[in-house]
This record gives sequence, C-alpha cells and structure tokens, in this order.
Amino acid sequence: MIPTIAWAPDRPAVRILDQTRLPATEVFLDLTEIDAICEAIAELRVRGAPAIGIAGAYGVALAAHRASRHPGTAADPEVEQAAARLRAVRPTAANLAWGVSRALQRYRESRAQGKAPGSAAAAALAEARAIHEEDLEASRAMGRAGVLLVPQRGKILTHCNTGGLATGGLGTALAVVFEAARVGREPRVFVDETRPLLQGARLTAWELEREGIAATLLVDGAAAWLFATRGVDLVLVGADRIAANGDTANKIGTYGVALAAARHRVPFYVVAPISTFDSEIPSGAAIPVEERGADEVRTILRTPIAPAGVPVWNPAFDVTPAELIAGWVTERGIVRPPFRNPACLP
Amino acid sequence: MIPTIAWAPDRPAVRILDQTRLPATEVFLDLTEIDAICEAIAELRVRGAPAIGIAGAYGVALAAHRASRHPGTAADPEVEQAAARLRAVRPTAANLAWGVSRALQRYRESRAQGKAPGSAAAAALAEARAIHEEDLEASRAMGRAGVLLVPQRGKILTHCNTGGLATGGLGTALAVVFEAARVGREPRVFVDETRPLLQGARLTAWELEREGIAATLLVDGAAAWLFATRGVDLVLVGADRIAANGDTANKIGTYGVALAAARHRVPFYVVAPISTFDSEIPSGAAIPVEERGADEVRTILRTPIAPAGVPVWNPAFDVTPAELIAGWVTERGIVRPPFRNPACLP
Repeated sequence: MIPTIAWAPDRPAVRILDQTRLPATEVFLDLTEIDAICEAIAELRVRGAPAIGIAGAYGVALAAHRASRHPGTAADPEVEQAAARLRAVRPTAANLAWGVSRALQRYRESRAQGKAPGSAAAAALAEARAIHEEDLEASRAMGRAGVLLVPQRGKILTHCNTGGLATGGLGTALAVVFEAARVGREPRVFVDETRPLLQGARLTAWELEREGIAATLLVDGAAAWLFATRGVDLVLVGADRIAANGDTANKIGTYGVALAAARHRVPFYVVAPISTFDSEIPSGAAIPVEERGADEVRTILRTPIAPAGVPVWNPAFDVTPAELIAGWVTERGIVRPPFRNPACLP
Repeated sequence: MIPTIAWAPDRPAVRILDQTRLPATEVFLDLTEIDAICEAIAELRVRGAPAIGIAGAYGVALAAHRASRHPGTAADPEVEQAAARLRAVRPTAANLAWGVSRALQRYRESRAQGKAPGSAAAAALAEARAIHEEDLEASRAMGRAGVLLVPQRGKILTHCNTGGLATGGLGTALAVVFEAARVGREPRVFVDETRPLLQGARLTAWELEREGIAATLLVDGAAAWLFATRGVDLVLVGADRIAANGDTANKIGTYGVALAAARHRVPFYVVAPISTFDSEIPSGAAIPVEERGADEVRTILRTPIAPAGVPVWNPAFDVTPAELIAGWVTERGIVRPPFRNPACLP
C-alpha cells in the first residue's frame, strides 16, 4: 500500500505524496490551505480519478475545519465556496465532484440538524475518511474480481498509472495485477510510458518494481506493434468517467490502445470503482475533456524538446467507445456488454 | 532546401547537419573517417531512410578516397570492408544498403576496367553525387504527384520526420506538404512528436516553422483522438522499407496511426522514393526490425524519466500492412491497391 494521501490531524492538513517528484524523490506535502489543494490537483501532485475524489473530500473537511473558527453564518459560505472551487479544478474525472459532494452533503446535513460548525467539520472529515476506506475496500474487491481474467504468466498491457498512487493506496487496474501476483499468477506487465506527463514511466514502472512484478516499459507509439508481435493476453486500464452507455474517458492514448487491441482480438478491460460511473451523462460525446497547457508537450521535465512557440494540442483524456470494451471490472463484479451501471448488479 | 548532407571536397569529408542537436543548435560535422560515419548513422545524427542512403554512398566514396593512397591490391579490400560496415549499421531502411551498393558497384566496375584506385574513388563519388541529385529530383516529383491528394486548407497528420532532414534536402511526405503550400493550398499539419527520439517535435515542427506552414504538435497517444474529434483529411508518412506486397516499415508508431486512420476512414498514404521498395522481401513479416537501446526510452535528452533499471522494449520501426494503405506516392506517380512495384509503372 502506498501513502498517496492522508489526513494529518495535528495541523490539520491534507498530506500527499508529491507525484510530480517521483520516481526520483519521495516528498510529502502537508496542504493546509484550499489554494494549495487546488494547486496540487491542478498540477497533478495528486492524480488518478479515485485519488482526487478522496483529495476533494478531505479538502472539504479541511475547509470546514478552518471555517469553524467563525460563527456558523460565516462558516457555511466559506465551506460552500471551497467545495465549488475544488470541484472545478479538473473537469473530466467523475470522482472529484463525487467526493467533494459527499463530504459537503454530510457537512450540510450536520448543520441542518443544528450542529455547530466544528461538529459539522468532524462529520465532513468522517465522510472523507469513509470514502478513503471504501476506496481501499473497492480496490481489494476489484482485484479479486479482475484476477479471474489473468492467465498464468499472462502478458498484460497497461496505460498511465492506476496503482496505489492513483487511488487511496491500492489501485484499480494495477490492483488486479497486484492480486494476480499475490495468488501466484506471475503476471508480466507492459507499461506504456504515457506522454505527456509520463505516469507510466515514472509511476507505474516504480510501483511494479516496488512490488517485484515483471515490468517492461515502451513508448506509447509501440503499443500497436506490441500486439502484433508479442502476444499480449489482455489490456487493463483505469477510467476517469464512464457514461451511461459505457463509453469510457481515460488518459489520452487509451483510445488508440483500444483500437489496436480490437484489431488483434486482445480483450480490453476497464477497471474502475462505481464512483467513476456517471449515469447523468448519456454517452462519451457529452463527457467534458480537459485540454492542458502547451508546455507539457513542448518540454519534458522542463527541458525544451520542440521549437519554443510551436502550437500544441494537448487533450488530457480521450473517450473509448463501449463497443471496444470487453468488460468493466468494479467492486461489484465484472459488467460485460451490453453495458449496464454496476450499481444495478445483483 | 536543408543542407542535411554534402560532400566536403577539401578534406575530403562527408559533411552533415547533426540532427541530434536540433532544434536548439545547428551544428555541422565533417566526418573524415568511416568510423565517424557509422557512428553518425547509428546515433541518428543523420537519419531518414533516403538520407542514410546518400550518407552510405558518400561513405563508400570517402573510403575509396582514403584507400587510394594504397596500391590497388590494398585499396580494394579496404573499400569492400567499409561498405560492409556501413551497410550493417542500421538494418531496416532499404535505402542504406541500396546507396552503399550503388557506390560500391561503381567502384568495382571502375577497378575492373583497369582504372587506378584514385579514378575508381572519383567514380564512386560521382555515383554518390548522382544518388543525391536523383533524391532531390525524386522529392520534387513526389511533391508534384502527392499534391493532388491535398484539399484546400487540408488537415494532414504526419509522423516522425520526412522533410529535408530525412532526405537529400527536400523530403518525402513533407515534400508533398511543401508543394501544397507552394501552390497555395494552405495545408495545416498535425505533427506526432514521435517518441522516443522526438523527430516530430524536434525536426518536423522546426522544418514546418522554417517554411511558414501551420503546424500543431501532439503526443503520439493523441493521434487516435485527433481523428475522432478534429476532422483530419489525410495521413502522410514516409517509409524505411516496402516489401513486395506493399507492407511498409516505418518509424515506430506508424502502425497505430494507420489503425486509427482506418477506423475513421481517413486515407493513409506512404510517400517514398523507389529506392525504398524492396522486391526481394515478400511481405512485412520478413522485414528486419531494428531494436534500439533502453536508455532512449528511460531518459529524454539525458534526463531520467523512469526507474534506472526498468527493462525496456524499444523497436525502432513497425510494419503497416498494405491493406491499411490508400496508396504509395513515388517519383513515378501514385501506386494504388492492388500494390505493385512503382518501378513497373508506365
């Protein structure tokens, strides 16, 4: 388990492992201000759809603790504003708005019951802790559900980072890999480096090495050729938002992997907790896709790699249509086509 | 036109623009030893299938000039050995072996006619110069043939670098873009950055900017999503070797682009001179694909981006099956399916 995010009660603060510094250095940041949490989410110091859901919930708890110095009439708008700001930092991941809303709702209910701002802050914190605990339990359950897909010495391709760093500490797609290793399947993992921010090279390779699991790194452009030449058994990826028809937003590059997997008849699975499923959004066409700054592409770790002024198109995500997906592994089991919301699983 | 490669008669030397230093710095290297030419080709200081064909031919001429200090019986093995070494530096591009063989053949013929090593060296140099001239003429002809494919304000996706830097000074796929711009089509080019060595970001973006052509840079993983969302009109790529059935080896990542183009019904064209077509190789399965070192992936411009010891799979090329290719643009015109060798065009 990775100490991706925690509540630091003494200050109080939201403590995160700064993922932008990995794998070179393990730096923990104690974030005591909403501004700092928003910055950490925006700059991907904490990232991964489930992890930013937890960060958003802890952020609301932090705002409530800070606001409780004021009388209730002044505290409430401060908490509401903090929640609105946190929710808006990144638009694509469903989990961020979901985590913020759950903690905020608990705060509101507590206040509506006549509790003081300090008590309501404690309630919001309890909700954030519950979200974190549920995330860990969901990771364990996704691991158990997904391990059935992994053959002995199976070759798995993954994209971006979906491990402990992307969640409350265990993972989504990588939770399946970890469980497969735990039960003796000896999985062998091919890791797309995942430009522009190299979460595969920096984070997934680091997590797999830490767990002693065989990992091979490749550039994103090599994935299609991997299917053609190396006999991949399955693809496991995470998700940032899953529409009501199963269309799945995930890190840019996922859609191309899905197309290549389809060509080579390699089953392509999405691993995501129920908090990622958004039944309000009918299809992928309506999922908001965040576009990020040009310098993420024009530079790598601050080194220029292109002419300084060249225009850049930098979508952070893409959407894979449901028809290319063999199944969605969730904490309630595997949803197979035709897609339905896993919350409705028996 | 770009001074990618030239014969420097005074020393004599093969003069190249060191592409590993672009776009930051324009450094020319005078290579006076076969070792240095082999190193420059291996390290991609000079790269691109047509350009290394020319470099190989000039390399044979250089070896012949150096060897001509010895009497013929000592000169000939030295030239033969240099040719064998040059040919072996990079296995995938057809043009390298082709360029080396042409210059060597001319040397041998000259010696067989009883000429002195110095005269044979001059003959080899004349052949290298002829190859270089033919390359420039082929680029012009490919530009004229391919421009018919480019609509007004057409959106073109390209991969790797296929411009003046990849050839004797004008280009293959980019020669089509340059010709389209020249005749007022106002092409708009999307440029895959092309990991691991970033030829798109470093070289293609630089060449397009230099010519005042609209260019937008994207990470390789974004190409499939580009087709889905931005309305690309056509794909133009180069080639390193084209088998007798039309299967086409090109820079790693090309195959994934072809799959995504097929999904979105975007025509995918290969632009390559006849020297790239290898009728000795029946299909893509028999094309040798170079695998390169791990540090090209584990580091970017010498900065580590992954755990130091992580295993890497780094194929330099992939093979796109002929069925995904709408046509092959050559100096003899456009070959459309069913594929046939362009040397047989009327």
